[in-house]
Amino acid sequence: VYDTEAYGKMLAIDNMIMCTERDEAHYHEMISHPAMQIHGNPQKVLIIGGGDGGTAREVLKYPSLSQVTMVEIDETVIEASKKFLPSVACQFGNPKLDLKIGDGIDFVAKSPADTYDVIIVDGSDPEGPAKGLFSKEFWQNCKRCLKPEGIVVTQGESPMFQQNAFIELNQCLKDIFGAKNVHTSLFFATTYPSGMWSVQLSTKSGKHPVKNFDSEKARQFARDQGLHYYNEGLHIGAFQLPTFVKKMINEL
Amino acid sequence: VYDTEAYGKMLAIDNMIMCTERDEAHYHEMISHPAMQIHGNPQKVLIIGGGDGGTAREVLKYPSLSQVTMVEIDETVIEASKKFLPSVACQFGNPKLDLKIGDGIDFVAKSPADTYDVIIVDGSDPEGPAKGLFSKEFWQNCKRCLKPEGIVVTQGESPMFQQNAFIELNQCLKDIFGAKNVHTSLFFATTYPSGMWSVQLSTKSGKHPVKNFDSEKARQFARDQGLHYYNEGLHIGAFQLPTFVKKMINEL
Repeated sequence: VYDTEAYGKMLAIDNMIMCTERDEAHYHEMISHPAMQIHGNPQKVLIIGGGDGGTAREVLKYPSLSQVTMVEIDETVIEASKKFLPSVACQFGNPKLDLKIGDGIDFVAKSPADTYDVIIVDGSDPEGPAKGLFSKEFWQNCKRCLKPEGIVVTQGESPMFQQNAFIELNQCLKDIFGAKNVHTSLFFATTYPSGMWSVQLSTKSGKHPVKNFDSEKARQFARDQGLHYYNEGLHIGAFQLPTFVKKMINEL
Repeated sequence: VYDTEAYGKMLAIDNMIMCTERDEAHYHEMISHPAMQIHGNPQKVLIIGGGDGGTAREVLKYPSLSQVTMVEIDETVIEASKKFLPSVACQFGNPKLDLKIGDGIDFVAKSPADTYDVIIVDGSDPEGPAKGLFSKEFWQNCKRCLKPEGIVVTQGESPMFQQNAFIELNQCLKDIFGAKNVHTSLFFATTYPSGMWSVQLSTKSGKHPVKNFDSEKARQFARDQGLHYYNEGLHIGAFQLPTFVKKMINEL
């Protein structure tokens, strides 16, 4: 954890910036709220990774929830975040949070079918322990664990910086969920390389993130919760991709 | 001009990155096409700055044009771009381009009223010769030079990096054009600090960039011209701002 002049406290793992106090909300809101809003009534949510606690913080804003299971492989990340990033790691004491220290890849492999409404894969780049988060087997298990109306969402790498990982992940998701059911959004990740980062969202039911979106409900939620980045207009805007990104993932 | 591994040739002025071969289209398309498309039938265009030639290249894609006047203060930028960035500086020989070497601030001060359909201010940050591009007097002169249906657009700095310049410019434009007639869009400027950059657009007629937008016309134009970044969905998406940006400019 570094203390920076412009971005406040900054968490880095293996020399890669994970989050900073100043801009963490961009990432944590954009990996959580589009999926939660599209689902409409999420009760059971699974977070893979997310050790800093920011994704759990966002997800726990939904009163419909009965339980959030979070599986983080590295307890040190949680401890460091509790100590140095208290505004991010602020919900570890929430009684709805079931925190497990372990391998998320094993966890979904052993989870029963039809269990979760939303699965959020909040892991790092495809190196080291996160490599398996980019495998076909992992995504097949995620699909199996989802309820029929379920949605799975993942940080999707960058079309500018991690172009191959971005494309391969998209292709893998389309192979499993069907090309029409995989949707890419972009947001300003101002402390990630290039600043242009994606979230890739797959639906089991075929729900469309823009066509089946309740804009008024999202507007009220964002306002009542005092969100920093996400709002109902941005939800729609984030799924509008530049032409070169569409071409990369065969959507043109 | 530097030769980089990941972004090709890169033009820097006073230690600030101006453009790179790999991502210059993001900036040049987003400073040009939203304004040109919203206007609908631009015939006379004025570019202030834009020495690398990228903005002139985009604007000259419109067959409706009769003349593009470009006023660049620094001939060295043009010469360096012609030599090292030929894919950007590719339209300096176009007979519709009237290139003037001089001070754009003086130029608009001396220009007759009701002259231009679109004015594009493609200058650098508010330091040195570009400082006057952020003054009230300059924007009043721009407004005067615009035809009644005219639109003026400027690189609008970054809400993350140049927060004060971004806010002050927005306030200045709203004072002159009226708060309802100033519209901010964002795009991924992947080689600018934070990667989150704005274009601020002001209309003299009150035309709304999303409500008065001909999506089908923009779709055809982007496709026929083989644009890299801009398309009709992105046009709408770019004007959807994150909540913290809306707050900064009193739009929430």
